[in-house]
Amino acid sequence: MTELARPSSVRKHQAILEAAEQVFLRDGYLGANMDELATLSQVSKQTVYKHFGSKEALFIELVSTMTTLAGNELHDEVPDPAAADELPTFLEKYAERQLNAVLTPRILQLRRLVIGEAARFPELGQVLWDRGPRRAMTSMAARFSRLATNGWLRVDEPATAASFFNWLVMSGPLNQAMLLGDQAAPDPAGLRDHCAEVARVFLAAYGCNNSTTSESH
Amino acid sequence: MTELARPSSVRKHQAILEAAEQVFLRDGYLGANMDELATLSQVSKQTVYKHFGSKEALFIELVSTMTTLAGNELHDEVPDPAAADELPTFLEKYAERQLNAVLTPRILQLRRLVIGEAARFPELGQVLWDRGPRRAMTSMAARFSRLATNGWLRVDEPATAASFFNWLVMSGPLNQAMLLGDQAAPDPAGLRDHCAEVARVFLAAYGCNNSTTSESH
Repeated sequence: MTELARPSSVRKHQAILEAAEQVFLRDGYLGANMDELATLSQVSKQTVYKHFGSKEALFIELVSTMTTLAGNELHDEVPDPAAADELPTFLEKYAERQLNAVLTPRILQLRRLVIGEAARFPELGQVLWDRGPRRAMTSMAARFSRLATNGWLRVDEPATAASFFNWLVMSGPLNQAMLLGDQAAPDPAGLRDHCAEVARVFLAAYGCNNSTTSESH
Repeated sequence: MTELARPSSVRKHQAILEAAEQVFLRDGYLGANMDELATLSQVSKQTVYKHFGSKEALFIELVSTMTTLAGNELHDEVPDPAAADELPTFLEKYAERQLNAVLTPRILQLRRLVIGEAARFPELGQVLWDRGPRRAMTSMAARFSRLATNGWLRVDEPATAASFFNWLVMSGPLNQAMLLGDQAAPDPAGLRDHCAEVARVFLAAYGCNNSTTSESH
C-alpha cells in the first residue's frame, strides 16, 4: 500500500482541495497564498506539493473536481421522457437542473477565475470546458439522437441541436451573472419562465409537428 | 478653453488609451504597470492621472471605449429588411456582423479580463454589459417590435426574443473562445453555418408561418 493510498492520505488530499477552494476562489490564482492554504488544510506545505505537484496543478485539479461534481448532480440518472408529449416538461425541468447546478456562487466564481486566467493557463479552460459544457452537450446529443430515432424530434445533427439547447438554457443567465454578479441571475420564477421559453423555442426548431402545444398527441 | 479640450490634450488622451489597451490586455489589471503605460503614451504618470483619475478609472474607460467602438461597427445604419422573405438572410448577416465584431483577439481578451475582475470591480462588468450585450439586445428588441407590427414576426416580449437571438448567435462561439482560446472559435465557413442555423431556429420560434422555408410568400 503506497502512502498516497492510506486513508489519512485521502483525508489530507480532500482537506487540501477544500482549503484550495476557499483560498483560490477568494484571492484568485496569483493572489492565493500556499502557506495559508497549507495551514487551513492542517498539513505542511511540503505535503501540499507532494499531493499535487505545483500550485498550477492544484488549481487545475480543483477546477476539474468542482466542475465534475457539479455535473454529476445533473447527469446522473435522468431517464428519457416516456412519451413525446412529455418533451416540453422534460426539457424545462432539465434546463432548470442545469441552471441550478451552475448558478451557485462557488461555480460562478470558479468560472470567472478560469476565464480570467485562460490566456495564461489554457489547460484550465480546457478542463472546465471538458467537464462542464462539453460533457453536458455530449450527453444531450446522445439523448436527442435517441429521441430522433423515436420520431419525437427532427434533428439532423445532434451535436448542433445539443449545443443550441445548452446555450439557450445557460447563456442569458450565465453571462448576466458573469458580468453583473451573482445577484443578477434571475430569481426562481424568472428561471422557470426562462426554461419554459427555452423548451418552446427548442421544440419549435427541432420538435415534430405540434409537440410544443398542449394540443399535441 | 480648458486644458483638457486642447487638441494636444485630446491626442494625449487617445495615446494613453492606446497604451492602456496594450498594457492592460497583456498584463491584466493587477499586473499593469502605470510607469510603463505612461512611457508608452509619451506623457508623465502625472498626466495619466490628470486625464483619468486612477488606474481603475482608466481601465473602466478602456472597457467602455473598446466595447462602444466594437458595437458601433455593428449597430450603425443597418436598415430593417424590406420584405418578410428577406428575414432569414437579414438575420444571418446580422448574426455574422455581431460575431465578427466580438470574435477578435482584442475584444475576447478584454472580456476575459473583465470577467476575471468582475468580483473585485463590479463596475467593469456593468460597463461591458451596458455597452455590449444590453445595447445589442435593446436595439434588436426595438427592431423585432417593428417587425412584429409589420406582421413578419410573432413576438410577445421583444426583450425576450432579442435576448434569445443575441445568445443563440454569440454564446456557442463566444464561450468556446472564452474557455478554449481565440483559435477555438469556428472558422468563417463554420460561422456561416452557425448563423444560418441561428436564423432557422429563431424563425421557427418567432417567425410567422413558413417564413423559414423558401416556399414562404
